[in-house]
Amino acid sequence: MRDRHVVIVGYDGLQTLDAAGPFEVFAGASTVTAARGGTGYRVELVSSAGGVLRAESGMGLCSGPLPRRDRTVDTLVLAGGSGVGAARQDTALVSWIRAVAPRCRRVATVCSGALLAAECGLLDGRRATTHWSRAGQLAEEFPAVAVDPDPIYIRDGRVWTSAGVTAGIDLALALVEDDLGTDVARTVARWLVMFLHRPGGQTQFASPVWVPRADRSPVRAAQERV
Amino acid sequence: MRDRHVVIVGYDGLQTLDAAGPFEVFAGASTVTAARGGTGYRVELVSSAGGVLRAESGMGLCSGPLPRRDRTVDTLVLAGGSGVGAARQDTALVSWIRAVAPRCRRVATVCSGALLAAECGLLDGRRATTHWSRAGQLAEEFPAVAVDPDPIYIRDGRVWTSAGVTAGIDLALALVEDDLGTDVARTVARWLVMFLHRPGGQTQFASPVWVPRADRSPVRAAQERV
Repeated sequence: MRDRHVVIVGYDGLQTLDAAGPFEVFAGASTVTAARGGTGYRVELVSSAGGVLRAESGMGLCSGPLPRRDRTVDTLVLAGGSGVGAARQDTALVSWIRAVAPRCRRVATVCSGALLAAECGLLDGRRATTHWSRAGQLAEEFPAVAVDPDPIYIRDGRVWTSAGVTAGIDLALALVEDDLGTDVARTVARWLVMFLHRPGGQTQFASPVWVPRADRSPVRAAQERV
Repeated sequence: MRDRHVVIVGYDGLQTLDAAGPFEVFAGASTVTAARGGTGYRVELVSSAGGVLRAESGMGLCSGPLPRRDRTVDTLVLAGGSGVGAARQDTALVSWIRAVAPRCRRVATVCSGALLAAECGLLDGRRATTHWSRAGQLAEEFPAVAVDPDPIYIRDGRVWTSAGVTAGIDLALALVEDDLGTDVARTVARWLVMFLHRPGGQTQFASPVWVPRADRSPVRAAQERV
């Protein structure tokens, strides 16, 4: 069996981790399966024009051109970021996604990538989530989408949507788990030094657990030599 | 007050998230402080030759050249990755780090970036951690370093070292917290949709918490429309 082709779509103003998180999870899974003699993933970051993308943070990421429309894409991942508004107006990109997505085995969105998917009609009639800051916009602009602002990720048939940024790592681990089993996904998580694979049903609105500085002083005292 | 200059050092074969995680945390903190009229960070990914870096996963990242040695760097971050062995042999890079690091306010390493820091003598006589898979090598090659393979991150004076990959995000949040307070760091974590800021003292050997598929079926049934 050939490696599955994962195509991550970016654009200027993407959130770096929306692309890099899934990229590293799929690449890590390939390392794990290669060591076991199995097949994995071929991962690519692509964009409308190809070339260097300037992320929202200022980081520069290299992207390849959009694959030919007749090529088989296994998993299409749409990244989010502040540039998603401009990406939605990129007719070449939207036309390519509209042509390719229906023939992919599955489509996944990270963060505000859900807005790009909705623009391409991929979320019509489906339950979907997005970054908590974008859920209102998604629901308002696309009444055909059943927006649930709460979960870390949602699977609705062959379309998976995730909450913001780091939730894309959880989503990618879930996709790897679906393809290759829990053991491979857990091994990737361990290499990435993640403790917690968040299931889709967990709320994205949980406040970050933060050990207050004062309460942490015994730990700090033990750790630091000032 | 001017923005603090954060310089992240990469090389071919770096782990993308070792650089992208801290980059996004510092950039995110700048967005938060800018909205409040305060100063933040100016973040740069640099490398020995500048230009495109090919990460361990195959992803391409743009880097600038090494800053002039007389420029003030606030925070120097050394990323890890499978290319760290070659980076340690890059005499121009090692010489630059040796010259610049002593004048930085602080130095931080992510993952196997600790090996590069040790190569440059920055960890001599200090407690340090690294990715669990590299701790034995670090201790063996550098007996002057007190390696603790357990924590998520360690602060020893002005040198901070972290465990692998995603631990770099925790470390960067700790640096932001140290500079700008818990509220700013927590706001960044919330935008990144992180639930848990792991304190340095937490072990990196915790097995990933994974809800077995069978146990997750009620959640899956509620979430999925197959």
